[in-house]
Amino acid sequence: MPDVSLNLGERSYVVHVANASLSNLGFRVSRRRLTGKAALITDSNVYPLYGEQVKMSLEDSGYSVSTHIMEAGEANKTMRTVEMLAEEMVRAGHDRSSFVVALGGGVVGDVAGFTAATYYRGIPFVQVPTTVMAQVDSSVGGKTGVNLPCGKNLVGSFHQPQLVLADPTTLTSLPPRVMREGMAEMVKHAALSRPAMLRALQNAADEIDLGFTLRTVEKLPELIADNVTIKAGIVEADERETSGVRAYLNLGHTLGHGIEAAVPYGSLLHGEAVSLGMRAALYLSRKLGGLSREDEREVLDTLRALELPLVLPQEVDIDRALALTTADKKFAGGRIRFVLLHRCGAPYLADNVTQQDLLAAMKELTKPC
Amino acid sequence: MPDVSLNLGERSYVVHVANASLSNLGFRVSRRRLTGKAALITDSNVYPLYGEQVKMSLEDSGYSVSTHIMEAGEANKTMRTVEMLAEEMVRAGHDRSSFVVALGGGVVGDVAGFTAATYYRGIPFVQVPTTVMAQVDSSVGGKTGVNLPCGKNLVGSFHQPQLVLADPTTLTSLPPRVMREGMAEMVKHAALSRPAMLRALQNAADEIDLGFTLRTVEKLPELIADNVTIKAGIVEADERETSGVRAYLNLGHTLGHGIEAAVPYGSLLHGEAVSLGMRAALYLSRKLGGLSREDEREVLDTLRALELPLVLPQEVDIDRALALTTADKKFAGGRIRFVLLHRCGAPYLADNVTQQDLLAAMKELTKPC
Repeated sequence: MPDVSLNLGERSYVVHVANASLSNLGFRVSRRRLTGKAALITDSNVYPLYGEQVKMSLEDSGYSVSTHIMEAGEANKTMRTVEMLAEEMVRAGHDRSSFVVALGGGVVGDVAGFTAATYYRGIPFVQVPTTVMAQVDSSVGGKTGVNLPCGKNLVGSFHQPQLVLADPTTLTSLPPRVMREGMAEMVKHAALSRPAMLRALQNAADEIDLGFTLRTVEKLPELIADNVTIKAGIVEADERETSGVRAYLNLGHTLGHGIEAAVPYGSLLHGEAVSLGMRAALYLSRKLGGLSREDEREVLDTLRALELPLVLPQEVDIDRALALTTADKKFAGGRIRFVLLHRCGAPYLADNVTQQDLLAAMKELTKPC
Repeated sequence: MPDVSLNLGERSYVVHVANASLSNLGFRVSRRRLTGKAALITDSNVYPLYGEQVKMSLEDSGYSVSTHIMEAGEANKTMRTVEMLAEEMVRAGHDRSSFVVALGGGVVGDVAGFTAATYYRGIPFVQVPTTVMAQVDSSVGGKTGVNLPCGKNLVGSFHQPQLVLADPTTLTSLPPRVMREGMAEMVKHAALSRPAMLRALQNAADEIDLGFTLRTVEKLPELIADNVTIKAGIVEADERETSGVRAYLNLGHTLGHGIEAAVPYGSLLHGEAVSLGMRAALYLSRKLGGLSREDEREVLDTLRALELPLVLPQEVDIDRALALTTADKKFAGGRIRFVLLHRCGAPYLADNVTQQDLLAAMKELTKPC
């Protein structure tokens, strides 16, 4: 399995995807010519599982390592946590010559990445993602940041990592529901630019049902690396989300964020809300973008095979979800930018989606599928 | 008076220095092709003086403006203030198409700049500095950031402004002591690269003593623009402080920060501590760098003419100031990097300054001068 390259000029790096690669982290980091001390940032869930292994790998390659453990959970993705981590790093003797290792899921990657982006006005960092969502999506592309009380990801930096090291064996420790929600992002990538991969994901879904077998685990690196290639291509085309190409990655996320924000925290996982958001986007794509019923069905079948939700939970207040959607940050200059598909593999940015369309799409989500 | 240019590739901009230029801000901003809404960030001291004037200038050029007022003072240069400002900006309807205008002294510039650097992962901003220190130093070069409880400027970003507009008439509202402390940075710039300017500063000092006359105010733009040219050249040579050239700007700041941190907050202004730090650096430069007594005297005479302190206040605990100095962030990889002068106009980074040298320099500061 060759590394996936991101060609971003002087900010280029690779995503290394291999089973059991956690124990090679120190070697890979030293090959990247990172010197100085390492600040290992992880969370209270991940540290007991992989913290010591990662620390030892770094130490075996000669690095001095301090460990900083944040409380797990989206609720801790805050400025306060960044400040606390930076304080700890100062006390541990880190200066501008140090680097950060982010070990964990999307929240750890975003928080540790933003800490690295701003500590002494920016030090290098390495992403070691341990969830599906983090391995195929959030660890790649340099978006870092925290939430504000009034909204998600509103404060942050573009700060590319020096290296992403993804060890798919870490996924076997995930609860099946968390594994499945992460695969919603893989479906999104496939629908955006490689429809053939949808079938591979349907097959993978069957195997997750049966629990992880040796054979499944052996297939994961290829499945993940292939999927990362899609994200890498989009980031290369539009590193700082200025041309519109990177905005395609918001497929399913616009209404998805609104739905996620409208339910009590934790009742819908992010990927589950994205699954609902994708169904809505497919409906609008058929109505406004000429998407065929066959293409719509192929994506819906994949989401269904992964047992991701396609029908809005009854407790969701549609009006509230819509209000939260239009308060979402995906609207530039007051205009609604909505990612739709002409067909699978052919996304576009629609600017003609009306409030009525959004309401109709949301109502569609109350119907069986 | 031509604008001072900073040539930083796609991040290039100008520093426009002119009396009464505040009322031209809107025009200058529109010439820079900034579109979108403006978030005017200022503090509780500056808003009553210039807030409405700046807002009106922007509105007259067609901008929609929201105003955000932070509490004045270094104690509010925190992550918490950045979070509060970002929250306010969200509520005022700002998104990634907005821009920030930072109106005030060094604290406002650093906090508003860091808010702009991280809001939606970075939006443009304009610096409108209203103190000497901010006009000749902190507004130019893209350093933004906040303090941590354990140290100053430890979290931040490099984020270049789109434009710096300095109106020297705003300086006439400064208390003389604040005016003088700002001039310590001007002396620093002159000592680093244009010794002839020291005499001009001595002459200016006499005029401040007499209060601002029309003639003094007329001379300020040239004095400030000339001084900014020095800073601009250093930033152009080493934008992100990687080659060592930009580190020259720490002349007088290493021991200065230690001294500043060792006294009760506010008993020494930043520029006053820098003046003491410069005397110490001159002493070490004579001892280790071959600086002549004549060059040392020329700088000391300028600081003295500006009535800046050259003798350590009795309450300063030398051991504590030294401990705080070595805890300071100017030490990379555990090694002390100290800016010294071979002669005025010829700085260098010394790596052979010992703890004994620092103690001797600190003791020198207890002697009359």
